[in-house]
Amino acid sequence: MKKLEHIGIAVKNLDKSNLLFAKLLGIEHYKIEEVASEGVRTSFFMIGDVKIELLEATRADSPIAKFIEKRGEGLHHLAFEVDDIKKQMELTEEEGFLLLNKAPKEGADNKLVNFLHPKTTNHVLVEVVQEKK
Amino acid sequence: MKKLEHIGIAVKNLDKSNLLFAKLLGIEHYKIEEVASEGVRTSFFMIGDVKIELLEATRADSPIAKFIEKRGEGLHHLAFEVDDIKKQMELTEEEGFLLLNKAPKEGADNKLVNFLHPKTTNHVLVEVVQEKK
Repeated sequence: MKKLEHIGIAVKNLDKSNLLFAKLLGIEHYKIEEVASEGVRTSFFMIGDVKIELLEATRADSPIAKFIEKRGEGLHHLAFEVDDIKKQMELTEEEGFLLLNKAPKEGADNKLVNFLHPKTTNHVLVEVVQEKK
Repeated sequence: MKKLEHIGIAVKNLDKSNLLFAKLLGIEHYKIEEVASEGVRTSFFMIGDVKIELLEATRADSPIAKFIEKRGEGLHHLAFEVDDIKKQMELTEEEGFLLLNKAPKEGADNKLVNFLHPKTTNHVLVEVVQEKK
């Protein structure tokens, strides 16, 4: 993995949490983006060279809605950047990590993404992201 | 807040998780440190300019033992670096955040630290850290 690209935080109300994190971090979010396929609306803050992504569910069967129902709001995932997501997926599978998707999916922020199953990563949901070319 | 300094991850077995994260991140941990006052043994990985801190409880009344009992292993806290922790504590209290300690405490990695109560920060445990001079 090349670097920590972002940290995902599950929130119930994106507008309220945007205000809260602006106060906490001393910076404003720089964009809002909806990923319809995942049922999420997201906002991004940049602190140093790491992004903080707030995630709000847009429908009841969204992974974020299910997460909040089970665990409540809070830290949701860590995303690491790689140069070649397909190569990284092969490598991580060889090393015994379980991938959530057979092929990379479209994520927010012009990215191809996949996830490692938390049961193979110390219960941390790990996202692998590659910038789309 | 100046930058994301580290991400804390609660683990049951530090030695096993050190191997797991080395495989996941493709790097080795660069140090292990015990903070007796907090009842934790910690290890650090550096990815880009952000640290990942794994935390194992060393006694049953450690905050990490209680966290794992309640929520299981996984993402525990985000730590942000500041230049002046006392000034930052005043500022965060003025803005309505609740601090866990009246005064900064000694943390791992040569730091003065304090925590913001998760109930005021979207259920994210936020640590504020200042390098000791």
